[in-house]
Amino acid sequence: MALSSGSKAILIILDGLGDRQSKKSGWKTPLQLARKPAMDKMACEGMCGLLYSISPGVVPGSDTAHLEILGYETPKYYPKRGPLEALGANIKLNHNDVAFRANFATVDEKMNVIDRRAGRIDTQTARKLADALKGIVIDGVNVTVKHTVEHRCVVVLRGIGGDDVTETDPHENGKRLECKPLESRSAKTAQVVNKLAMEVYGRLMNHPINKARKASKLPEANMLILRGGGEYFPVPTFAVRFGMNATCIAAGALYKGIARFVGMSAPDVPGATGDGNSNLKNKLVAARKALKSHDFVFLHIKATDNFSHDGMCLKKAKMIEKIDREVIAPLLKAIGNDVVIVLTGDHSTPCCKGEHSGDPTPIVFYKKDNTRRDGVKKFDELNCAQGSLGWIEGKHVMPIIMNLTDRAKKYGA
Amino acid sequence: MALSSGSKAILIILDGLGDRQSKKSGWKTPLQLARKPAMDKMACEGMCGLLYSISPGVVPGSDTAHLEILGYETPKYYPKRGPLEALGANIKLNHNDVAFRANFATVDEKMNVIDRRAGRIDTQTARKLADALKGIVIDGVNVTVKHTVEHRCVVVLRGIGGDDVTETDPHENGKRLECKPLESRSAKTAQVVNKLAMEVYGRLMNHPINKARKASKLPEANMLILRGGGEYFPVPTFAVRFGMNATCIAAGALYKGIARFVGMSAPDVPGATGDGNSNLKNKLVAARKALKSHDFVFLHIKATDNFSHDGMCLKKAKMIEKIDREVIAPLLKAIGNDVVIVLTGDHSTPCCKGEHSGDPTPIVFYKKDNTRRDGVKKFDELNCAQGSLGWIEGKHVMPIIMNLTDRAKKYGA
Repeated sequence: MALSSGSKAILIILDGLGDRQSKKSGWKTPLQLARKPAMDKMACEGMCGLLYSISPGVVPGSDTAHLEILGYETPKYYPKRGPLEALGANIKLNHNDVAFRANFATVDEKMNVIDRRAGRIDTQTARKLADALKGIVIDGVNVTVKHTVEHRCVVVLRGIGGDDVTETDPHENGKRLECKPLESRSAKTAQVVNKLAMEVYGRLMNHPINKARKASKLPEANMLILRGGGEYFPVPTFAVRFGMNATCIAAGALYKGIARFVGMSAPDVPGATGDGNSNLKNKLVAARKALKSHDFVFLHIKATDNFSHDGMCLKKAKMIEKIDREVIAPLLKAIGNDVVIVLTGDHSTPCCKGEHSGDPTPIVFYKKDNTRRDGVKKFDELNCAQGSLGWIEGKHVMPIIMNLTDRAKKYGA
Repeated sequence: MALSSGSKAILIILDGLGDRQSKKSGWKTPLQLARKPAMDKMACEGMCGLLYSISPGVVPGSDTAHLEILGYETPKYYPKRGPLEALGANIKLNHNDVAFRANFATVDEKMNVIDRRAGRIDTQTARKLADALKGIVIDGVNVTVKHTVEHRCVVVLRGIGGDDVTETDPHENGKRLECKPLESRSAKTAQVVNKLAMEVYGRLMNHPINKARKASKLPEANMLILRGGGEYFPVPTFAVRFGMNATCIAAGALYKGIARFVGMSAPDVPGATGDGNSNLKNKLVAARKALKSHDFVFLHIKATDNFSHDGMCLKKAKMIEKIDREVIAPLLKAIGNDVVIVLTGDHSTPCCKGEHSGDPTPIVFYKKDNTRRDGVKKFDELNCAQGSLGWIEGKHVMPIIMNLTDRAKKYGA
């Protein structure tokens, strides 16, 4: 595949970056509270605006937000969450594989879910239980179970097709576990999911770990409950669509999975954890290195969102300051006119709400030697609203990057 | 149907609110001329922008503007004007009923329309004539004629289907009355409309009222001319689509009809007249009461538009001041963080033009304790253009309301 020529680009997404002002936080957002000279320099010298990753008011999921921003419009290119998590867990998927997120859980003999997380079973124990679930074949369908972290797994039904089934994760304790098809093509999927539940129960109920847990009055991890099922399908790669070979620097499995779904590489970064202790310096080193061998780098930093979900406005502001100091400032120093830097969030997670919201996120496109400097002085929700971009949607981000990197093909003649 | 949880919302639409500046008005719009401290407080503490109810430059009708703002995209959810007027006149409609707006008019023996309003016949007389048009059945089709006000009626052809016919209202005097089908499915509708004209003429030509009018040299009301024909179809209710039970506080039949079309209740409000003498205090009382039992209140005030159509810029400004004093100020005092207030217009009606225009209308979303305060100080066409929302379209209003009331479902995971 022929790659186009032009500048390189790095897209930096600070998860859940945008916020609302509230009385409690003195009518300031974390971005307004934070001292962040490098981000503000980008705003001063770049092109600013607000980004709705889907469209005004719509509350994005993490998966849909990233796909839209990376130029993969949903629902056309949305395989649902399961396949993205599976790819993130380094499972190779083929067309028609149906992947689920799964939890180790506790059920009673009547298949009622007693504890959705089996007492928040630890990583090491869960991994041993997952070992007991290898090589399952049900009605001719190979089943892959892969443990990820804590009580979480990914389950893949190979080549089965049909993902329109009810989730066996009841999302609250005390409900009976059962999978029902929601359309005829998914009948077999529901059947296999139900038989899989019995197989898992049979293999785990008398597992030594569960005997020990029972003796210690801990909830037994005797079931896998499934959610977010989706059928994998291949999509045109990012390189084919945008003529840039691309890589992703992220800690979270979902973000790596999204990157792999669109054909980017997504190596592991030592010390990158996806929380407030993540080694940002290592991520920066990895991103700078990646820029040498790639045209496009997607750098994802999760911690801003974690503090938002926990309602910690000041900690979110401090995290923004850390990112400014350890990632943005050195990047600005190191990078010349040959790399466009884009800084934004995938969605807002207002601390006052603790959940994703449909409020837009500030965005800045920075190119050192030629761009439109639109007079915005601060990188925050209010100042960027005055930027020359106005508000844009996720689908506009890649075309603007293609324009600024001088890679966009003329539409028409 | 399960309603979602979250804050409540009141959407206040001041009809034809937006305006242009003109030399005649000292380059000020009515909103700029008016002293309106409560609206300005909303702007100061809320999120501002400009609203194109359809899209930039498009001149909205009252019906399409409201449907778009209420989240019912046109033309998909647009039954044309007739059914909305019929619902507003408290006529129950069923699928495939075709409803028209109608005028009592005067025709000569050759069916030429001499006077489109039969000398602007008064309400009482017209009502008596409508009584003579009960129980009409043509080619097996039941016809409902209901008088509304002055020379105006609504005519419904029950269950006939097919609304693509020419109007028998020629919109100017001196033209011959005839209905032609514009596609094959509407052939029967055209036939029934033409036969109905003969039936109406037969029943009214020698009616005692018309004999008396002839004797007094008044134009006889011997015909009904039809316009705005549309086929009714049921749509998913507002409660189903947005998870909020909703009610409408309005005087005008059209606005009540729009509300009923989307499944809102629309009670009569004592003293609400839809003109400059409308009892705004009663409307406020009704709206506040409605907020206790409903999640969503649509409050419509018509008078601003009436002054616009009459080119009375100063009176429009005075009306805005009255609304500010009697509706907005007390509402702001009474309402806490549990109600999102949205203030806007359905379209602009510049006084210098006297007709709807495609200019946008200011809009503000206000939530007492958490939102984005975007630094706009005045609620008018120019200041709101600097707000953080930039310009939005009608279709964005409900998603933004769903976001601010924390009722929006996440799109994706």
